[in-house]
Amino acid sequence: MSSTSQYQDFIPPHRLLMGPGPSMVHPRVLHALSLPLLGHLDPVFLGLMNEIQALLRLTFQTQNDFTIALPGTGSAGMEAVISNLIEPGDTAIVGVNGVFGSRLATMIERHGGTALRIEMPWGTTIPIEVLQDRLSDSPPVKAVVLVHAETSTGVWQPLHEVGALCRQHDTLMIIDAVTSLGGVPVEVDAWGIDACYSGTQKCLSCSPGLAPLTLSPRAVRALRQRRTPCHSWYLDLSLIAEYWDGHSRAYHHTAPISMLYGLHEALRLVHEEGLAARITRHQLNGDALMAGLETLDLKPLPPPGHRLPMLNCVTLPDQIDDTMVRTTLLKDYGIEIGGGLGPLRGQVWRIGLMGESCQPAHVLTFVNALEEIFAGHGWLRHPGRAAQAAMETYTEFQRSARRSA
Amino acid sequence: MSSTSQYQDFIPPHRLLMGPGPSMVHPRVLHALSLPLLGHLDPVFLGLMNEIQALLRLTFQTQNDFTIALPGTGSAGMEAVISNLIEPGDTAIVGVNGVFGSRLATMIERHGGTALRIEMPWGTTIPIEVLQDRLSDSPPVKAVVLVHAETSTGVWQPLHEVGALCRQHDTLMIIDAVTSLGGVPVEVDAWGIDACYSGTQKCLSCSPGLAPLTLSPRAVRALRQRRTPCHSWYLDLSLIAEYWDGHSRAYHHTAPISMLYGLHEALRLVHEEGLAARITRHQLNGDALMAGLETLDLKPLPPPGHRLPMLNCVTLPDQIDDTMVRTTLLKDYGIEIGGGLGPLRGQVWRIGLMGESCQPAHVLTFVNALEEIFAGHGWLRHPGRAAQAAMETYTEFQRSARRSA
Repeated sequence: MSSTSQYQDFIPPHRLLMGPGPSMVHPRVLHALSLPLLGHLDPVFLGLMNEIQALLRLTFQTQNDFTIALPGTGSAGMEAVISNLIEPGDTAIVGVNGVFGSRLATMIERHGGTALRIEMPWGTTIPIEVLQDRLSDSPPVKAVVLVHAETSTGVWQPLHEVGALCRQHDTLMIIDAVTSLGGVPVEVDAWGIDACYSGTQKCLSCSPGLAPLTLSPRAVRALRQRRTPCHSWYLDLSLIAEYWDGHSRAYHHTAPISMLYGLHEALRLVHEEGLAARITRHQLNGDALMAGLETLDLKPLPPPGHRLPMLNCVTLPDQIDDTMVRTTLLKDYGIEIGGGLGPLRGQVWRIGLMGESCQPAHVLTFVNALEEIFAGHGWLRHPGRAAQAAMETYTEFQRSARRSA
Repeated sequence: MSSTSQYQDFIPPHRLLMGPGPSMVHPRVLHALSLPLLGHLDPVFLGLMNEIQALLRLTFQTQNDFTIALPGTGSAGMEAVISNLIEPGDTAIVGVNGVFGSRLATMIERHGGTALRIEMPWGTTIPIEVLQDRLSDSPPVKAVVLVHAETSTGVWQPLHEVGALCRQHDTLMIIDAVTSLGGVPVEVDAWGIDACYSGTQKCLSCSPGLAPLTLSPRAVRALRQRRTPCHSWYLDLSLIAEYWDGHSRAYHHTAPISMLYGLHEALRLVHEEGLAARITRHQLNGDALMAGLETLDLKPLPPPGHRLPMLNCVTLPDQIDDTMVRTTLLKDYGIEIGGGLGPLRGQVWRIGLMGESCQPAHVLTFVNALEEIFAGHGWLRHPGRAAQAAMETYTEFQRSARRSA
């Protein structure tokens, strides 16, 4: 006993999670995580898996039969899609304008593919014209790979014209929706997406550890027609499909039971609220946050029209001490926000408003805290305006809602 | 709302989990799973990760610095070890006497290695002499890969002589301890194991979804000296090490926060009980179970001296209807046991007594239920003896404990 008595009860301090994920988790989801376990082949558990698939189809807005949750984080979803759909010798065009585009290109190369990178400055989108030119200039490519919501820059990539382009060139459309799913529209069928993956810890507001994933019939055909087996056994979607398939239920891995309980409850919450209402909520709170931050001279990195409401990436004025402010926010206010990654380290903050984290009270608490820190360091000419600016956004929203009612 | 009202509150039925895993989870672990989340770079969470590493070192009985929990199930641990330590062109000797040995050989081949299989009948061990001969006959091999507790057959593989043999031939010793860790001795340092992985849902009695893993300095050197990057980015141990490393804490994936809360609590429970006491408990309950099953004409598949106490694999007499009995156990008694895999389908049962599932009350409940079902079908000549035989094992244990006190 004496050797382990140093390991005390763990009681996490209270945090407002306003970083790039994990987001806060609803008490109903936390409760679901704590339910007693069932076996992974128990008929009652298999029934729950069926419901998760149906709820994920609603969330991805798809009829795809192949719609599952992988036993790994969002990056496992990324690797599953790349390693299963890109074979050694295949070529894929990948948009690289942030960390996750780079990661996709790396994965393509590790699995023996060629990544044709469309490199754009961090903070900008991948223009459809450039993609069009690249597709026309290249020999046939297996897939076009884009990040819908680039978590490292806050850029919202337009996708509605990409599907037609991909079909015209007989190439698969692969989309990273880790941060976007459940926060902005992700219309898998309407946009012609062939493979789409996400994570549970962003706008779905479940704990991290699962990767929702959906494949179109075209993508499933590509999977079935592979010339060689996927390098990865753990992420081999042909094998995993046999476990999720309602008929065979062949053992592959032991499903993460508790996490799937949690995801089921998180998805129920998404659909009780309604996807449309949830998307409106994310946009409204994102707008209110940005109105408040504007008064603190924090400007969004992405251009207008391409700013994610759930991941607000703002550039820091020169005098601001990045680490000191984030440490003060965490220690004195219990608020977590994200710093910059890679070339943006020390240059930007990434303020998340995802799922349960996306609430007016959190926006107001945060802008007040930030204003107080800024004022304390003499960085502010006109204090007292941040919360007011955010509040005005909410008031204006209610006024226009009443007008249209 | 109407579209999702069909998805009701999920309330799992009560189950005695006595299959090959998941095992039952202690209420303290379930409570830990339900705690509010922290960010994966929060200093308080990083402190928790340090404690998990220290507790895992105690569990694996190792001083290995590289001791972590991977964000995937036990099979992710298997693939991480194989894909990181076996490079394209490498050769590994692998013992194949069940499902998990076969899976290891497949993974070696998928990652470009050559698997020299030592094939032995399912239900038997890999003899040290055969391994010795193979090592002497083969060109240099990168690793010897063995399953410590073969979950498909209940075979307990002896390991204490393997380490010296591996060092003599300058080869790495890779051990699958998914089912053994926390139930029978796993002495990583004393036995000279270079890479050892496990799962959380067996004798550690946490929920499935994490793979504890430890690498010796020799294995870390092999990792650092790779000629090519690992195919897998998600399971690249060089990258994952940078996140677990106390100094760099470089972002790789978003750690499965809730699952790591659960593992921390599960490991605290392991060490509050004490490894030695826990191992004794597994052996005692396994013995009691087998005494009871013997009266029902259910004989262990593995030979004496090589039977796992936490995964009791017994062959079915001809008249027994496998599916009917297991369905009755589940539906009428709420007891889950495992059926046979692969060539053993319909031939054996796999009765787990892992972690929290390993209790005298569960043993007695199970043998009583089985006896009742058998008697009801006229399969029993002398009913009423199973529970008594199990009880006698406990009584004898207490008697001999008193004698030696």
